[in-house]
Amino acid sequence: MNYPNKKNKAANNYIEYGKRGMSLESDINSSNKYYLENDIAIIYKKPTPVRVVKVDYNKRINTKIVEAYYEVPSTTDYNGIYKGKYIDFEAKETKSKTSFSLNNIHKHQIEHLVKIEKHGGISFLIIRFVTLEKTFLIFTKDFMSYINNNDRKSIPLSYIEEKGYLIKEKYNPIIDYLKVIDSIGE
Amino acid sequence: MNYPNKKNKAANNYIEYGKRGMSLESDINSSNKYYLENDIAIIYKKPTPVRVVKVDYNKRINTKIVEAYYEVPSTTDYNGIYKGKYIDFEAKETKSKTSFSLNNIHKHQIEHLVKIEKHGGISFLIIRFVTLEKTFLIFTKDFMSYINNNDRKSIPLSYIEEKGYLIKEKYNPIIDYLKVIDSIGE
Repeated sequence: MNYPNKKNKAANNYIEYGKRGMSLESDINSSNKYYLENDIAIIYKKPTPVRVVKVDYNKRINTKIVEAYYEVPSTTDYNGIYKGKYIDFEAKETKSKTSFSLNNIHKHQIEHLVKIEKHGGISFLIIRFVTLEKTFLIFTKDFMSYINNNDRKSIPLSYIEEKGYLIKEKYNPIIDYLKVIDSIGE
Repeated sequence: MNYPNKKNKAANNYIEYGKRGMSLESDINSSNKYYLENDIAIIYKKPTPVRVVKVDYNKRINTKIVEAYYEVPSTTDYNGIYKGKYIDFEAKETKSKTSFSLNNIHKHQIEHLVKIEKHGGISFLIIRFVTLEKTFLIFTKDFMSYINNNDRKSIPLSYIEEKGYLIKEKYNPIIDYLKVIDSIGE
């Protein structure tokens, strides 16, 4: 699923400098690849949903889509299985130095994460504060507890630091988020 | 994710005649909707992967994709969670009256189903024999047992009838495949 796009091409230029500057999405895809190849977990990014309006069947080799539009995803971007458990999460970057705005995530995606937790899955957000170069994992029950008790449109960094888990970047996997799952004994 | 396409439009004409003639995909999507709305399970069809080559950013409202191609999916079409268990499956129709050809499913999709089972998930195929109007669920371990022992390119209907589970169509959910999971006590 690693198809090239402008963003990834730009990011690839940074590889020589120790993989810094890669997007959170690239880092997670690379980590999932590591998990898969080492038979640790099977977690994939879902394809971006596209509404196809018009195709050209005249092409010999491959049907060409000539009119299509991006759609809002029904669920989160990532799901899969780890140690028999259903895993589901969304990953978001923010440039803010102080808080994570809930405008970054669709309301129905939050509702999806809550449902997953209710059904016995492990659901969370991975949030990268790009400017601070810090990446956190915060479980659904913890950020929901803040949202429900404070009725606010953003979660302060201080709360994420307190209730979330800082994921230190390493060589491979870059973002070892499954270590957090291990640490809480789920 | 219920975007209209030619196939679905055609299928909709049959609704008046008691939903007969709907495609297996429509039936499963409708069943998953029932499961979701009744808080029974959270299972979605993954979007079809599309490789976007060219977009038109000049459009005011929505980015228009003007050149794109369908890609081979990395995994199966459906996954989700039921009673805390990770569920993963592929659904296929065949016109054959005697067997299910493995040409209907990509090799890496079968490998994916095997991996999921190994990691503690529940994985299976849903196969509809369109001409016979019969739909079966067969678990990965059962069809793999046939493939490994017989080294053949297709699974005979008789084997599927013996090791698989016939799913009788009903009103809602049309294809109640989770009942099979219940029946085996997983």
